[in-house]
Amino acid sequence: MSPTHPFDAAIQLDVIDDNTFRGRTDPEWDSMVGPFGGITVAALLRAVASHPARIGDPVALTVNFAAPIAKGDFDISLRAARTNHTNQHWIAELRQDGDIKTTATALFGVHRDTWADTEARPPSAPPPEQLARDSVQQDFVGWARLYDLRFVEGAFPGEGAQRSSAATTTMWMRDRARRRIDYPALATLCDIFCPRAFLRCGGPIPAGTISLTSYFHADQAALDALGDGFVLGTAHANRFFGGYFDQSAQLWTRDGVLLASSHQIVYFKGDACKPREEDHVRQRS
Amino acid sequence: MSPTHPFDAAIQLDVIDDNTFRGRTDPEWDSMVGPFGGITVAALLRAVASHPARIGDPVALTVNFAAPIAKGDFDISLRAARTNHTNQHWIAELRQDGDIKTTATALFGVHRDTWADTEARPPSAPPPEQLARDSVQQDFVGWARLYDLRFVEGAFPGEGAQRSSAATTTMWMRDRARRRIDYPALATLCDIFCPRAFLRCGGPIPAGTISLTSYFHADQAALDALGDGFVLGTAHANRFFGGYFDQSAQLWTRDGVLLASSHQIVYFKGDACKPREEDHVRQRS
Repeated sequence: MSPTHPFDAAIQLDVIDDNTFRGRTDPEWDSMVGPFGGITVAALLRAVASHPARIGDPVALTVNFAAPIAKGDFDISLRAARTNHTNQHWIAELRQDGDIKTTATALFGVHRDTWADTEARPPSAPPPEQLARDSVQQDFVGWARLYDLRFVEGAFPGEGAQRSSAATTTMWMRDRARRRIDYPALATLCDIFCPRAFLRCGGPIPAGTISLTSYFHADQAALDALGDGFVLGTAHANRFFGGYFDQSAQLWTRDGVLLASSHQIVYFKGDACKPREEDHVRQRS
Repeated sequence: MSPTHPFDAAIQLDVIDDNTFRGRTDPEWDSMVGPFGGITVAALLRAVASHPARIGDPVALTVNFAAPIAKGDFDISLRAARTNHTNQHWIAELRQDGDIKTTATALFGVHRDTWADTEARPPSAPPPEQLARDSVQQDFVGWARLYDLRFVEGAFPGEGAQRSSAATTTMWMRDRARRRIDYPALATLCDIFCPRAFLRCGGPIPAGTISLTSYFHADQAALDALGDGFVLGTAHANRFFGGYFDQSAQLWTRDGVLLASSHQIVYFKGDACKPREEDHVRQRS
């Protein structure tokens, strides 16, 4: 039976051998160049989670987007680099026709009941019920229509947007068809924010994540409690320089549980930014 | 001629073949279990930087500490997973006697002159000349004596320290022998902060970085301008849960240039924390 939800369809993998899984791109998840990185991340995480030798839950995942994934089949090869008593290190490579398109390392681990505390605080936001559902991002990337996104701050810069002075976005998000959030879905949500340069440049410009690292702070019990509920996400950038910028995000439950924190380095074409208002003024004067 | 500075001695590598470099542990850099992770990171970065096929500067580096490195020789094997026009993806593995001890992925890239901005702000701190040099951390890890560390906030919790309510550390740092800061040295400084759980637990407990990702925001010109000067570093944690916590750091020049941002996930034994003062009160009452 084929999975009916577009997320499950996109990360469905066939077992080729003990350490190889085959997937295929799905036009539903097309992005600027190749598939949305967040769905590739989910497929990689699912591959490791499906491996019979896997122990524990996802704790950390780094994915390097080395080259665009072309339409069609891809093979994910896995290797357990090291298995310890309570954690396990994986190396993954995604290939098409023998060429490496994506590399990844994953850390899985057992959660232990021990002293715990959260120092970070969720961003302040009105409840999602008081906010309208966004429909701008889906005009740019079709997969966004699979989500219910409600912006608190830093909405996707659509037609006529101005350059923003800050790259912070805060938004509520959930699956539009109310699919429950598991680890692969959480990994995808870590990458759901548009490239921060879009906000600073006043609209879409050529940009793409090169390397993304996510830390999963939630155990299965936290995901069970979340169910298909809203997640509050916030993302910002520290520095744009030399054609790259970094982007950090946090994902929270409504109850203030930090589910994940995520970081990425992004390539961007800064010379494609809209001229700033003061540049116009300077030209006119 | 052997390098005279302990940093250069520790990351000296012999060329074994086109894709293999041999290094050796150096007791000067011993840490809790095996060598200080920051020096292993530097050796891995140097290996990639030494490869004749390498293009550009370090942009991102993820290092997974899979198992403790034993005293003696280690081999670093490298593979360029993908070379693009302006960037290059590397996979590295550090082995001893055939066993993988460390895995890494590195992104090198060309810096382009384009629109730039820094949104993050450096932490407020008095100038380093107004602060005393710390000598507590070096009682715990000998390699700390190779640095000049001046704490603004969140000093290393030595003998008699109490549990802190926050895990933030801000400090000035430079090489004690005034070795100039290059990319390997910068990569090491990203990991110079003690595990954040030490502050929350009131002293050293079993803890170790499992995976570390650093983003380099500086080009060579910024490192040349920095020279052997002080770097202002700040580190904090978002969440301690299930035996793991995350830690994020930023490194700044005195002039407010963000040199690097860095993130890690750390294993810790929370049941080794000191009892809290309120626990004493509860026991007494």
